[in-house]
Amino acid sequence: MEQKPDFTVAVVGLGLIGGSFCRRMREATSWRILGVDTDDGTLEEALADGAIHQGIRPEEIPSGALSQADFVLVALHPRQTIAFLLENGRYLKPGALAADTCGIKAAVVKAVSQPLSRQGIRFVGTHPMAGREFSGYRYSLPTLFEGASFIVTPQEAADGEALEFLREFSSLMGFGKFVVTTPAQHDETIAFTSQLAHVVSNAYVKSPSLLRESGFSAGSFLDLTRVAKLNEDMWTDLFLMNRTPLLFELETILGSLKKYRDALLAENEQELKALLRQGRQLKEESLRRHEEAKKADPPERTGK
Amino acid sequence: MEQKPDFTVAVVGLGLIGGSFCRRMREATSWRILGVDTDDGTLEEALADGAIHQGIRPEEIPSGALSQADFVLVALHPRQTIAFLLENGRYLKPGALAADTCGIKAAVVKAVSQPLSRQGIRFVGTHPMAGREFSGYRYSLPTLFEGASFIVTPQEAADGEALEFLREFSSLMGFGKFVVTTPAQHDETIAFTSQLAHVVSNAYVKSPSLLRESGFSAGSFLDLTRVAKLNEDMWTDLFLMNRTPLLFELETILGSLKKYRDALLAENEQELKALLRQGRQLKEESLRRHEEAKKADPPERTGK
Repeated sequence: MEQKPDFTVAVVGLGLIGGSFCRRMREATSWRILGVDTDDGTLEEALADGAIHQGIRPEEIPSGALSQADFVLVALHPRQTIAFLLENGRYLKPGALAADTCGIKAAVVKAVSQPLSRQGIRFVGTHPMAGREFSGYRYSLPTLFEGASFIVTPQEAADGEALEFLREFSSLMGFGKFVVTTPAQHDETIAFTSQLAHVVSNAYVKSPSLLRESGFSAGSFLDLTRVAKLNEDMWTDLFLMNRTPLLFELETILGSLKKYRDALLAENEQELKALLRQGRQLKEESLRRHEEAKKADPPERTGK
Repeated sequence: MEQKPDFTVAVVGLGLIGGSFCRRMREATSWRILGVDTDDGTLEEALADGAIHQGIRPEEIPSGALSQADFVLVALHPRQTIAFLLENGRYLKPGALAADTCGIKAAVVKAVSQPLSRQGIRFVGTHPMAGREFSGYRYSLPTLFEGASFIVTPQEAADGEALEFLREFSSLMGFGKFVVTTPAQHDETIAFTSQLAHVVSNAYVKSPSLLRESGFSAGSFLDLTRVAKLNEDMWTDLFLMNRTPLLFELETILGSLKKYRDALLAENEQELKALLRQGRQLKEESLRRHEEAKKADPPERTGK
């Protein structure tokens, strides 16, 4: 469908993710790009940058400001995403494709799929796995997605056209990997690979020893605490919306850490060594799987 | 003392750390470099590379192979370091300076300082805070220490000459920071900045979710698990020799993680947000302290 000469995309929320999509689309496509944001300054900046063709404030939507959009990409935090789609689905073009970009999928997909479907809007949940330690439009980059994974969680396998479009979109945006999975499977995996990492990193800095680490910080400390600097509003939403899988991961790492603690407390050298060996071997297996995946499925574009 | 035309250094153990010191010394000094290793192949390789002037096997030491060394730098694992110094102190030149490179200091300093002192050897514990995910001579690099911290833990503040030599040595080796502290303070801090990071990283990969993370791994997962691939023999020694400070850090992070778990279990949004905000703020303060330290004390050499 993106072959149409006047193919129009609306990006809702010109933050780090939305802004980066706009910048990349301007470089990689000839689509007409509408940017929706509540902040006039951001809309003006994006227009001045040439990242969007037209700036739209949310209150203009009921009067038809998005009625020409073939693809509506919502790049808001989870609760705002759900609220936006439930409120504005009725003002979108029948047959349009809508997608969100949230870090959790089941809660969003469940909340918006049926209401949108009843309004003739096709919805597919997506998760562009990219980010920076900064947020907001001014940090957005056309290269943000280079080599990253674009995960899509279609509700009905039937909508082949939408999936085909998203696959091409993923490639055009520079993603290195296109992954199709279910919302539940996505959420369980992301609880481990992303959410747990943020909780552990955020918990790590809570030792009184933090005050005297300067000068003693090797790469390991900096690695472990890089994502401790997070947006607590967004991550609280993400965690609560993915409570069961994240609780499982938290219980799992608490159980694992206690084993090291107990072995150390008991001065049990053999047990401590066995625990460390097992972890080392699991990491090595994980690295091997990454290598094999790279060989089996070379990225469409390589990261910079 | 390093101004002497025939100043001689012995590096004991040509692994990643020892090999890197040799390579760097050959580039940055005109010292005579003796390499001690149990492996003939490694000695030959180091000679062929020009990293050392002479290769010595440990059994040659009693016959006086190290009797000309002004500075003996032991780059072995903790237990081997202690055993080497206790066995060979008597064969070193009276008045020579000896240093170790272990990641824990109190246990090493306590074990070897007095015996060496009685033999007329001056000992200072050091910790070059550098490493790679690989070990062994073949991974050694003359640039390994660029910009890193060189921590020294002198027993007697009186030995100003030894300390002055180590400060110059640190600079010549390319370290960015020279830190003088006590063995106990070093060990407490390192339990937090390095040992805890290795335990947490090693524990992180023990979730069954590890099997399906491929394609879902953002930078945060890779950061958190980078140091999971560790040498379990060396780290078991390091952990047991620093048991009390590491137990404190393990109990601290277990307590912190339980708070997030409890808030999530209770669906307590305000508490969860407050926990995340506190972690974010602590990390931001830590980043500010790093920036201020950089301004106040610019490194003698900047890292590459």
